Amino acid sequence: MYKGMYVGSFDPVTKGHINILKRASLLFDEVIVVVSASTSKQYWFSAEERAGFIEETLADENITNIRILTHDGLTVKLAEKLGITVLIRGIRSVKDMEFEVDVATLNKIQNQSIETVFLIADEKYRSISSSMVKEIAYYQGKIDELVPAAVEKAMIEHVKKRWPE
Amino acid sequence: MYKGMYVGSFDPVTKGHINILKRASLLFDEVIVVVSASTSKQYWFSAEERAGFIEETLADENITNIRILTHDGLTVKLAEKLGITVLIRGIRSVKDMEFEVDVATLNKIQNQSIETVFLIADEKYRSISSSMVKEIAYYQGKIDELVPAAVEKAMIEHVKKRWPE
Amino acid sequence: MYKGMYVGSFDPVTKGHINILKRASLLFDEVIVVVSASTSKQYWFSAEERAGFIEETLADENITNIRILTHDGLTVKLAEKLGITVLIRGIRSVKDMEFEVDVATLNKIQNQSIETVFLIADEKYRSISSSMVKEIAYYQGKIDELVPAAVEKAMIEHVKKRWPE
Amino acid sequence: MYKGMYVGSFDPVTKGHINILKRASLLFDEVIVVVSASTSKQYWFSAEERAGFIEETLADENITNIRILTHDGLTVKLAEKLGITVLIRGIRSVKDMEFEVDVATLNKIQNQSIETVFLIADEKYRSISSSMVKEIAYYQGKIDELVPAAVEKAMIEHVKKRWPE
Amino acid sequence: MYKGMYVGSFDPVTKGHINILKRASLLFDEVIVVVSASTSKQYWFSAEERAGFIEETLADENITNIRILTHDGLTVKLAEKLGITVLIRGIRSVKDMEFEVDVATLNKIQNQSIETVFLIADEKYRSISSSMVKEIAYYQGKIDELVPAAVEKAMIEHVKKRWPE
Amino acid sequence: MYKGMYVGSFDPVTKGHINILKRASLLFDEVIVVVSASTSKQYWFSAEERAGFIEETLADENITNIRILTHDGLTVKLAEKLGITVLIRGIRSVKDMEFEVDVATLNKIQNQSIETVFLIADEKYRSISSSMVKEIAYYQGKIDELVPAAVEKAMIEHVKKRWPE
Repeated sequence: MYKGMYVGSFDPVTKGHINILKRASLLFDEVIVVVSASTSKQYWFSAEERAGFIEETLADENITNIRILTHDGLTVKLAEKLGITVLIRGIRSVKDMEFEVDVATLNKIQNQSIETVFLIADEKYRSISSSMVKEIAYYQGKIDELVPAAVEKAMIEHVKKRWPE
Repeated sequence: MYKGMYVGSFDPVTKGHINILKRASLLFDEVIVVVSASTSKQYWFSAEERAGFIEETLADENITNIRILTHDGLTVKLAEKLGITVLIRGIRSVKDMEFEVDVATLNKIQNQSIETVFLIADEKYRSISSSMVKEIAYYQGKIDELVPAAVEKAMIEHVKKRWPE
Repeated sequence: MYKGMYVGSFDPVTKGHINILKRASLLFDEVIVVVSASTSKQYWFSAEERAGFIEETLADENITNIRILTHDGLTVKLAEKLGITVLIRGIRSVKDMEFEVDVATLNKIQNQSIETVFLIADEKYRSISSSMVKEIAYYQGKIDELVPAAVEKAMIEHVKKRWPE
Repeated sequence: MYKGMYVGSFDPVTKGHINILKRASLLFDEVIVVVSASTSKQYWFSAEERAGFIEETLADENITNIRILTHDGLTVKLAEKLGITVLIRGIRSVKDMEFEVDVATLNKIQNQSIETVFLIADEKYRSISSSMVKEIAYYQGKIDELVPAAVEKAMIEHVKKRWPE
Repeated sequence: MYKGMYVGSFDPVTKGHINILKRASLLFDEVIVVVSASTSKQYWFSAEERAGFIEETLADENITNIRILTHDGLTVKLAEKLGITVLIRGIRSVKDMEFEVDVATLNKIQNQSIETVFLIADEKYRSISSSMVKEIAYYQGKIDELVPAAVEKAMIEHVKKRWPE
Repeated sequence: MYKGMYVGSFDPVTKGHINILKRASLLFDEVIVVVSASTSKQYWFSAEERAGFIEETLADENITNIRILTHDGLTVKLAEKLGITVLIRGIRSVKDMEFEVDVATLNKIQNQSIETVFLIADEKYRSISSSMVKEIAYYQGKIDELVPAAVEKAMIEHVKKRWPE
């Protein structure tokens, strides 16, 4: 499978995302990670910071066929511009799946040649979501098993700065 | 003889809603479409505009046994006032279904004689939701297969006016 | 809503089926109950016995706009023959729903004008299925809250005769 | 000997929560109810009011082995502090379940000895959620079958004060 | 929590079952494991063999508050006879859950004081079912991560004897 | 460069399977279709016939990078023998998904380098399953929208021969 695109907010990237990315990097010649930069949502980290966490983590893992972009817009349009026809999605649960089926179907209506392939998160990553990690971090719980080391450090700092005791 | 009530936000009405409405119009002598006018939610279009889109679309389809109202309040109370005992709901997915079961059950607690009948969205409409259509429109994607022509035009104008480049 | 058809094995009819039937009888001018008579499946009761249980129970409830048939064949073909376009299905759970969506979709492929409407089983009937009732009866548990009185009696006799101690 | 902890927002406590609590009180020597006091969410009632409703209702039911706390923080940390290792969760639906599996899994990552046990809401409480009760109360629907009497009274007053006509 | 009962076919016991049992043994003073001995189903192993595998595995793990029985009949009746009011069920997935809700509800109809508590299988055991293990064993795949050592040995022997090449 | 394997019973192949296969043929350099030849199950068609139907259909569609095998054994072992590390699965529904997650997880336990990628059946194929097609064919319903022409013909003949009137 040639080039694939993996889109998300990654606020922040979790070990679950990295697991999907590593596996996708073995299936595709090149994987383009797209960090959503929607201005209407509130993030803990800027798009550049979020992209930076992914870059750093992949470098530590010696994965070299992954390129990282930030983007605000329709996924399908970016895919067209980059000449990519395959979207990669990680699935954690049945709940995810229903939403993903809708998105994949609507993407295909935008462009018939856009294909979406799904990978199932490995067992120990199925309960990790960025939003739950943020809640745990906010309450100063342990997050070292949930996110890469650089992200853990940044989250702890973010909490200290934004909600000083 | 039998009247049914079909309640929703319709912000905006999609081809999926219209599909359910057309089919319901064959099952009931009269169908009352109720456009929710809750003041606490933020809509793209006013209740009157939303009702107007439905009216226009049904006129184009020559459906005449459907009446359209706007309303802010408990569905069951309006049904009682209008002497209607059957609520019509369109189902897109399993996720929808769980929510709908709760609503139907709570409606029955309000009034034991209120019955809810469910229709399954036809296959090609199962992934369309008003919120996803709005996101696609916001990013200037194609929405002509998702909403009636009048709605498409209004959404494009809305995006231009509200988020001028 | 004019005539509706409610198809099932009813081996045996449960209080859940009767609940759906009573509610359907208020929505339709006439409801045709079709007892599947497939020769390839193994039933506790013959199609005639199964139809008899429903008839007896409805008579006790004074419901008069329901007619009962037995039939072995495609539901859609029988509906066409009887001039019926609406199928009625009772839903107990999300699991049921997925199966029912498939059946309704395939029925529509057989005949575009066949419509399926779904009713949700009332809360206290959502866990009752004919197969579970049979298992409980086999082990001589209490089934009086699960099936009509005539069915309860017949099941107890069936167990005694077929599995004498 | 065994203590269990039952955490929630309880804004407000419903008859569904009380059903779970009564059943849990028979399974454990002591049940600690923890009312979440997160400052970032908007509640109808203060943590103290919410705790008060539970207390009052349990007193009416003569349940004496339940203690009520308010707390803002990670559940697992409070459990550790109180020497509790069992969390109790009530499940209403499949949708709930997926979320609960994630929370239970993440709690176990925080502390391997934390165990979560699930009770299924009794049939007639499965459609009741605090958020739906609030919506019905806002529109002045009947809530007496959904919440304890003291809560019903407080909700009606809250609506009158906050949204005077 | 006092005494709990954990019922199943255990044909054969898997590491998933053992995981639930170990955790249950920490929650209850005593856990009674009931091996279903239904004569109408076809098992790979006799009820005595199946009970033996569990006994052996628990002995290796030094768990002493678990007693093992074989039984053919209604769970609720056995629970009544033994003076037990709590049933323990392990949940692997949403699909399981719907079935379990039905069973728990029907058990409560048999006896109002029967309570069912659910534990979620730990992540790495969520995909293991006895039937899948048997299929893998039949095709001579690796099963050492799925079942206890004694079971693995017995399954390999069973396949050799029953389906000699 | 990349090869994928698509395993199934295909008794018979449906338009849904063909849809997945065509899309997979665009994602992989070569797709190996494996027709399960388990001797313990009862099929309408022999493994060779089932493979033949697929071959014929793909020839009609001018798809040339797909190879068809029949096989009785563990998927993972065949993949190892053929040097394939990617399994392709088509998903029709949430119900499918849970089963598929279990299978994919167990396959990974057999061999850590086996990856499973999922494609969602296109909307109009989501309700088609081989077993439902067989039931419709048995009752002489229309199956031309569900299976390729060659399969339709063979099914009609099969029904005539096996169940002569």
